[in-house]
Amino acid sequence: MAAGNIFGTAYKVVSFGESHGKCVGCVIDGCPAGLKISEEFIQNELNRRMPGKGDFSTTRSEKDKFEILSGVFNGMTTGAPICLLVWNRDVDSSSYEKMRFIPRPGHADFTAHKKYSGYNDYRGGGRFSGRITISIVLAGAIAKIILKEKLGIEIFAYTKTIDGIESNIPIPNDFNNIKRDPATGCIDPELTAKAHKILEDLKKDGDSTGGIIECIAKNVPTGLGEPFFDTIEGDVSKIMFAIPAIKGVEFGSGFKGSSMRGSENNDQFIVKENKILTETNNAGGILGGISTGMPIVLRVAVKPTPSIRKTQKSVDIKKMEPIEIQVKGRHDVLIVPRAIPVVECALAIVLLDHALRSNIIQNVLR
Amino acid sequence: MAAGNIFGTAYKVVSFGESHGKCVGCVIDGCPAGLKISEEFIQNELNRRMPGKGDFSTTRSEKDKFEILSGVFNGMTTGAPICLLVWNRDVDSSSYEKMRFIPRPGHADFTAHKKYSGYNDYRGGGRFSGRITISIVLAGAIAKIILKEKLGIEIFAYTKTIDGIESNIPIPNDFNNIKRDPATGCIDPELTAKAHKILEDLKKDGDSTGGIIECIAKNVPTGLGEPFFDTIEGDVSKIMFAIPAIKGVEFGSGFKGSSMRGSENNDQFIVKENKILTETNNAGGILGGISTGMPIVLRVAVKPTPSIRKTQKSVDIKKMEPIEIQVKGRHDVLIVPRAIPVVECALAIVLLDHALRSNIIQNVLR
Amino acid sequence: MAAGNIFGTAYKVVSFGESHGKCVGCVIDGCPAGLKISEEFIQNELNRRMPGKGDFSTTRSEKDKFEILSGVFNGMTTGAPICLLVWNRDVDSSSYEKMRFIPRPGHADFTAHKKYSGYNDYRGGGRFSGRITISIVLAGAIAKIILKEKLGIEIFAYTKTIDGIESNIPIPNDFNNIKRDPATGCIDPELTAKAHKILEDLKKDGDSTGGIIECIAKNVPTGLGEPFFDTIEGDVSKIMFAIPAIKGVEFGSGFKGSSMRGSENNDQFIVKENKILTETNNAGGILGGISTGMPIVLRVAVKPTPSIRKTQKSVDIKKMEPIEIQVKGRHDVLIVPRAIPVVECALAIVLLDHALRSNIIQNVLR
Amino acid sequence: MAAGNIFGTAYKVVSFGESHGKCVGCVIDGCPAGLKISEEFIQNELNRRMPGKGDFSTTRSEKDKFEILSGVFNGMTTGAPICLLVWNRDVDSSSYEKMRFIPRPGHADFTAHKKYSGYNDYRGGGRFSGRITISIVLAGAIAKIILKEKLGIEIFAYTKTIDGIESNIPIPNDFNNIKRDPATGCIDPELTAKAHKILEDLKKDGDSTGGIIECIAKNVPTGLGEPFFDTIEGDVSKIMFAIPAIKGVEFGSGFKGSSMRGSENNDQFIVKENKILTETNNAGGILGGISTGMPIVLRVAVKPTPSIRKTQKSVDIKKMEPIEIQVKGRHDVLIVPRAIPVVECALAIVLLDHALRSNIIQNVLR
Repeated sequence: MAAGNIFGTAYKVVSFGESHGKCVGCVIDGCPAGLKISEEFIQNELNRRMPGKGDFSTTRSEKDKFEILSGVFNGMTTGAPICLLVWNRDVDSSSYEKMRFIPRPGHADFTAHKKYSGYNDYRGGGRFSGRITISIVLAGAIAKIILKEKLGIEIFAYTKTIDGIESNIPIPNDFNNIKRDPATGCIDPELTAKAHKILEDLKKDGDSTGGIIECIAKNVPTGLGEPFFDTIEGDVSKIMFAIPAIKGVEFGSGFKGSSMRGSENNDQFIVKENKILTETNNAGGILGGISTGMPIVLRVAVKPTPSIRKTQKSVDIKKMEPIEIQVKGRHDVLIVPRAIPVVECALAIVLLDHALRSNIIQNVLR
Repeated sequence: MAAGNIFGTAYKVVSFGESHGKCVGCVIDGCPAGLKISEEFIQNELNRRMPGKGDFSTTRSEKDKFEILSGVFNGMTTGAPICLLVWNRDVDSSSYEKMRFIPRPGHADFTAHKKYSGYNDYRGGGRFSGRITISIVLAGAIAKIILKEKLGIEIFAYTKTIDGIESNIPIPNDFNNIKRDPATGCIDPELTAKAHKILEDLKKDGDSTGGIIECIAKNVPTGLGEPFFDTIEGDVSKIMFAIPAIKGVEFGSGFKGSSMRGSENNDQFIVKENKILTETNNAGGILGGISTGMPIVLRVAVKPTPSIRKTQKSVDIKKMEPIEIQVKGRHDVLIVPRAIPVVECALAIVLLDHALRSNIIQNVLR
Repeated sequence: MAAGNIFGTAYKVVSFGESHGKCVGCVIDGCPAGLKISEEFIQNELNRRMPGKGDFSTTRSEKDKFEILSGVFNGMTTGAPICLLVWNRDVDSSSYEKMRFIPRPGHADFTAHKKYSGYNDYRGGGRFSGRITISIVLAGAIAKIILKEKLGIEIFAYTKTIDGIESNIPIPNDFNNIKRDPATGCIDPELTAKAHKILEDLKKDGDSTGGIIECIAKNVPTGLGEPFFDTIEGDVSKIMFAIPAIKGVEFGSGFKGSSMRGSENNDQFIVKENKILTETNNAGGILGGISTGMPIVLRVAVKPTPSIRKTQKSVDIKKMEPIEIQVKGRHDVLIVPRAIPVVECALAIVLLDHALRSNIIQNVLR
Repeated sequence: MAAGNIFGTAYKVVSFGESHGKCVGCVIDGCPAGLKISEEFIQNELNRRMPGKGDFSTTRSEKDKFEILSGVFNGMTTGAPICLLVWNRDVDSSSYEKMRFIPRPGHADFTAHKKYSGYNDYRGGGRFSGRITISIVLAGAIAKIILKEKLGIEIFAYTKTIDGIESNIPIPNDFNNIKRDPATGCIDPELTAKAHKILEDLKKDGDSTGGIIECIAKNVPTGLGEPFFDTIEGDVSKIMFAIPAIKGVEFGSGFKGSSMRGSENNDQFIVKENKILTETNNAGGILGGISTGMPIVLRVAVKPTPSIRKTQKSVDIKKMEPIEIQVKGRHDVLIVPRAIPVVECALAIVLLDHALRSNIIQNVLR
């Protein structure tokens, strides 16, 4: 009971829709009135999530055109709930019918079947498809517009690690001029080259891999976050784990930091242009669950795409018998680049939610 | 606005209290009626969190005796909100007065001061002290009792990594017979020995370090978790980040898994004694945000204790001038072992919350 | 901030849409999986709310055809959020443009303009139109289906009072055979006749009136309600006040009961067929905020329709000058009969929400 | 599941404690930092709720001294959760033991027993005692302080009706100089005299009665309320029904208004000193669920005190046999005057909650 399809406290996002149903969308409750909505920007964010941007993603070409059903009037938010959605185009769901009782390893088929007693819409993964992240992108794109315009906050994510190889390019201050490789999401040409090589081999092999995405938000004001429980880290990690395939989240020095010395990991305070900053940013811009004013830095671990061509072991749930399966169709060797805009939008939702919970944005909105 | 001191949906935990105030406690709203509460077990969990269990923790000796103020009658829960607390004993707060405007690096002093415009109770870190985790232990201890008795769920955490050195002992099936080293929380004698050596050096040096805690829950039924947003991973990570010092959370193969192949990371389904299991458990017992029935496995990164004897740079917030500080008093070189029971209790809160949200426990409770 | 378009704890209803926008709809989060949805029943409930059922309602003929966008698969609920909506048909909004800054007395024009700084969609009352109750009807119709099928709960509302004249017909036990007068919602022929007379006069006069609706739910199990705050009365009254025009709610003997003696108002307990009942039902089926097992009985006061033909005083908000207005178009002399299905559906939402919060329905659902 | 002891969105009030347990208290989550708390004012509000103020209330003399456990430092709020409570003094609970299975008519004994399977603390009504309203008074007293100081909002309640006889005194503008009769809460000397006569007869008779309380809030700014669901009426009525004995709530012209003409009930807009007001206030200061700027006016129906000396019918739940009971001890003939401060405090909680949800108070708080 008490299903969990609503996220947020002040900027509430309600997700609905299925992969092979009529649509995927969201309702946003709590978006302030009087904000200009750029439909072009929203569409652009959706396009970034769409497949077909390189050699290693599925060639299924969805044109994810979105529609606003409510809450926007003359191009401005009205204070009423905003319903947005992307209509699904006709898709062939026939292949899923015969796989209904044979869960794919690494997918949610098994747990969904058990939890909803077999009544879940299993076509294309239903509610567990990566396609549901469209609801995060729709709500997050609007959050990005507001954060940028009202607080100057900018968010940028990219592929930090593929196959254990780390990107070594420092992030330029101007996010607008950073180029990501479409097929991998990398910004380091060296890593890009290596990654392409690895992915080509995996593609031939019918296998897949994952990676680590780093996401940075700059110009975040000091004071966002509502501890004890509603910390920035807590709320960000919670929404990140809604993105299928994400299995780890860390902030600042994160897991590596746990082996450092206190003297090394502590960020020393300094004064610069009458502002208090820290020399380093091992805290990832968050102390005590509250933003410090330094950039927020986090990394998420994306597991290898579970859909692979290789033969795998499964079980026929009805007969309770082992069975071998091969997931048919064309699939992403690497889902990481498509997850990048989702991670950015997820972070935007949390930052706007906390901005609206604090006095900080009220100051600006009035 | 909308402060964030309440966690949970069905088993709601409200945290209150300060480090140097009268008490630290919690109110639990949603605990079912008719459950026997062992005060001894709760006290035992609190004792595990107390300092003074080895050579590397603060020698401040708090006797954390708890008291139940409401919701329990004749040793049984009544269905009414349960208020529990630990009274703080007289502590000397004088040293904090002069440090009021000089934030300690790595602590929440700076962000708390900014967020609450200087009105926060700064003594001993106030709401940002590790002592506030008592509220998690109180609510989590009760959750553990119920989970164990009604569903057979058992939870165990230990120190997996110190200074980058991993524990190599497989977790025995019987959690009750595993011995942890009191000073480090390690279960691997080899790691224990190495860790002691490192910590002795750090102690002399006036420095500190962190570590990685692994936490496992077994006998978790299939079907806990409420995606899209209220996944097990999402809710667990959210509460983990309420524990001061935690900067990363991963499930199953986690960050390492992101470099694996799909064929390697996918857990193949098998039938065993008419139950569907997986051969491996890279998913950490969670697929699509829902428990699979396999053990839930997670790791959290604990940052090095920020309180160190070494001289550090800070800023006098009032004068906006740089200043050097040395954090006085005796402090934990390693906070990790004291965080272990908190991590276990935090996980227990989430699992009970989701058990109460699902039909699974209702089945048993009736 | 923190807009309030979401109702419920276990059966959450998210309302969206505007009177003259694209649609009015809702998302239901928390509807259990495996329930058969009768689209015919839902459409029927919507039809009951539609105007044009007598001589005293607006002749604007909206065909409120609804559509399910998500959460239902093969005619069954899937456990995923259910999005339903009614598309608005082309309406002429031109008349509202020139009235934009001249608030109609008794309407929300003034408060909406102030609250949303003039950015609200003012066409046809926008979010404050009676049309938004479609979202209650959609979610309530589904609730009714589940309550009836799983718990045998039946809900019936009718016009109790018009112009201070009370209905004197006792409610028959079989709700299905009670006939309501379409134009007034009355079930008492005597009251119906008198009401028609009054309404004809009002129609000629360009005036309007209100009335009192009584709503009864039978077969409600003992034990629904979650005091201290989430009482049945509290949650029912909260949702009732979302229905525009409702200005009072009472349960059982209500306001009249406040002048009674304790000995008279107390419902004495009796045993009947091994069940504990009460001789009278002055409590309206609720004691301590929890259902007693007796029928739930409540009455709501519906204010006179504020749209009247008579000249009224208003103020031009922009010029801050007095102005006289006449609300044009055809309007309802009596909105009460159209509010009847909304009141029933609102009650159904609360009862299902509380049934899902309790163990009672879990018992049946499994 | 999902017990309902938490009220509010921005100013969250968590109620705990039992009538004959250790204490009754609350935790407030969301109170802004930097507000001066007058302990004297809070104690004064509690004193108003205490019995023994006239001839018609119980002579049990509880000294309700409150204590602040957290969230206040140097007399100022810190932004942390505020825990306040009143310790119960030793009370004799022995008489309740033998009545455990014999529910008192008009009380929650029966429903509580059923809901909590007999595990509820039945002593003195446990969670269903009027004493639990202490948690509303504690949180409401703080709300009153903030509303008064930051927005100038003042709240006043009094007994409007006893035994169907209405008070005929217009409410003076200066709330501070209005005198209420301690024994009845009336402000009209004529009604006071009549009421005393009635109550004396009832006292002799061992019977009781109820009444209607009117509550007014002035200086409420335009724009509080978050429709569609979180209207001022909805949230106010919800909390009012948490007060035991309240069975009806109406705003403005309320039930009487439902028999009026639209032309009569609509409040015409006028301009006065460059402010938009209404000539009348039949809306009770609320249109579309949002405050208009006119005084908020509501009335609640208080049922006759259920504890009476007269013999009543009950049922022995264990034996399922009829039994006659007489509720022993001294009881309130009229609970109404003691409910007055609770109604005021309940309204204050809602108004502060909505002030904190809106931009209006942020403006002032900064």
